Amino acid sequence: MRGRVPLQAPAAIPQATGGPGRPRGGQVVTVALDAMGGDAGVASTVEGAALLSREEVPVQVLLVGDPIAVEQQLRQVRYDPQRLQVVASSGVVRGGDPPRATLDRLPDCSIAVAARLVRDGDADALVSAGDTGAVILASSDAFRRLEGVRRAALAAVFPTEQRHGPREDPFALMLDVGATVQATAEDLLGFAAMGSAYSAIISELPAPRIALLSNGSEPSKGTSAIVEAHARLAKGPLAFAGNVEGVELLRGTVDVIVCDGFLGNVVLKMIEGMSEIARDLARGAAESSLQARIGLSMLGPELRQLRARTDWKRYGGAPLLGFDRVVIKAHGRSEARAIRNAIKVAAKAAEGDLAGRIRDTVLAMGGSA
Amino acid sequence: MRGRVPLQAPAAIPQATGGPGRPRGGQVVTVALDAMGGDAGVASTVEGAALLSREEVPVQVLLVGDPIAVEQQLRQVRYDPQRLQVVASSGVVRGGDPPRATLDRLPDCSIAVAARLVRDGDADALVSAGDTGAVILASSDAFRRLEGVRRAALAAVFPTEQRHGPREDPFALMLDVGATVQATAEDLLGFAAMGSAYSAIISELPAPRIALLSNGSEPSKGTSAIVEAHARLAKGPLAFAGNVEGVELLRGTVDVIVCDGFLGNVVLKMIEGMSEIARDLARGAAESSLQARIGLSMLGPELRQLRARTDWKRYGGAPLLGFDRVVIKAHGRSEARAIRNAIKVAAKAAEGDLAGRIRDTVLAMGGSA
Repeated sequence: MRGRVPLQAPAAIPQATGGPGRPRGGQVVTVALDAMGGDAGVASTVEGAALLSREEVPVQVLLVGDPIAVEQQLRQVRYDPQRLQVVASSGVVRGGDPPRATLDRLPDCSIAVAARLVRDGDADALVSAGDTGAVILASSDAFRRLEGVRRAALAAVFPTEQRHGPREDPFALMLDVGATVQATAEDLLGFAAMGSAYSAIISELPAPRIALLSNGSEPSKGTSAIVEAHARLAKGPLAFAGNVEGVELLRGTVDVIVCDGFLGNVVLKMIEGMSEIARDLARGAAESSLQARIGLSMLGPELRQLRARTDWKRYGGAPLLGFDRVVIKAHGRSEARAIRNAIKVAAKAAEGDLAGRIRDTVLAMGGSA
Repeated sequence: MRGRVPLQAPAAIPQATGGPGRPRGGQVVTVALDAMGGDAGVASTVEGAALLSREEVPVQVLLVGDPIAVEQQLRQVRYDPQRLQVVASSGVVRGGDPPRATLDRLPDCSIAVAARLVRDGDADALVSAGDTGAVILASSDAFRRLEGVRRAALAAVFPTEQRHGPREDPFALMLDVGATVQATAEDLLGFAAMGSAYSAIISELPAPRIALLSNGSEPSKGTSAIVEAHARLAKGPLAFAGNVEGVELLRGTVDVIVCDGFLGNVVLKMIEGMSEIARDLARGAAESSLQARIGLSMLGPELRQLRARTDWKRYGGAPLLGFDRVVIKAHGRSEARAIRNAIKVAAKAAEGDLAGRIRDTVLAMGGSA
């Protein structure tokens, strides 16, 4: 690390893990958290890490950020000092900053230092609620693309009507949602392999059902990239369910939805927008009449359950897939609880050997996904 | 017309209009209805036309279909015989049939005969709830593409939170939703021109606000086709509002959303799926507890209003734009009321001189949209 001396040298961190990105089961997983990233900065990140430190989970968090700001925030919260450590960084890439230029100007900014801790094996996974472009670039700078993976993908979970896996997760996975705007058939195959590997770990599914998002269920429907990807997935080793349309996406008839980053981004924002609009409509109804207000309050338990299921804060962020390390991008608007969940998901992915699992899946698909 | 003699020859139909596709204001508009198209066939189409015939609107409907089936259905309903006439056709293209081959094999099928009535000036507009591919092909066979229009587009209205135009329409327009899967920048410009012209007539807006659906509001966001279309629309004569994302789409911050047919189709089906899922969730809540059931019944008026607003049956079908004639594709699942609305929309578009308006808009944009 150039420039600054870490408040507590990463080298001094007890390493109970099985090597970079591959902690052994049951042992402590170390997560490097970009403490400066996200709209609320240290206020959310430090509190999120503090929350987790008080729980019975074997996760160690390195809070990477301005040591004065982080320490000050730590004094405001209750935490287990055995489970949190501060690592100094200098500067932050903010949303709106040009990410490449800012990373070059601030080589010791929080996301860059956090990524290097993971690269060097001082941590097993990276979590950031900072600018998406900066997280992707810092990851490309620090990590290696996995062999056979042509393009990284950002995946997101979204609420579905049907449930998934033995833990009955009320969400499915969609990728890419923004890392690769236009995708070739080859890219889509890679997304399918990576999504399958991630879903297998996170939702504990032996063979996640994969589908291509298209404008019809027939193999001939969609762009030329989708038609080609369909033909190849149909012959491949994944649990390929064919094409799905917009309706089935929300029903959740499959576990992993594959599409290019442009479509995924539009669709994901529509889904986020839906719950916002539903909330506004309920508010409007409540204001319109006393009867409606009483009706809504009687539906309280059901509405709370629905709100919980459609709340992205519960689902712990979006994995950036395709690198030899675990990277979780938390939502920029993450509050403490969302940060805590993102750290937990990152630890679970590292413990499940995400990179190794992706490598194996790509290999099974013929080596070049 | 080959093969069969029309039950009532189209030549004998009183023509009160101002020529093909351009009836003069206040005069009777004639709509050719594919009476065999749609999942319910004559049951829906004949009843829809009959409904309209009893209303105070100057619209004449030609029921194009198997004369025996149509006459039989007419005996089941109340209608004004001055406003309905039967034109014989032979055969129908059903969903699942290969449309091109079936049209070639059945040159006098209902959609082909109806399109020729419009081509020959015996009717001012075409309405069909039949197979989308068949409607598009029959239109290409019978009509001319408008000068300067490279690709036809299918447009659809969808419910939005905000309202549009002086009549406060609770819907916006999106195109293309399936005629042109992959669109160039040039194609997107054409869709913008056609959507603007149609929205101006249907929602009575002097300058409909147009936006490109993209993965970010910045001009640099999206596929290369979108980035180029953005730059050109920004310099053009339309009321261009830039790019919108998934959230704003549902809010309805603009009047016309432009995208390629692949994206439009996925998004439209998601929107249709949402109200289905909302209905299922409400049903699930009602079954879960007595309290929820009472709460839902107290919300009755608000839920009915919401259901009405998100009900595609009210909005009268999707215009197929780019030809020198008015074509409205009604939903395959259309019941009588949806057919009635589609006929009304077709008459309004013909009366507003849709083709002329598109031609003028394309010309204003530099002649080649």
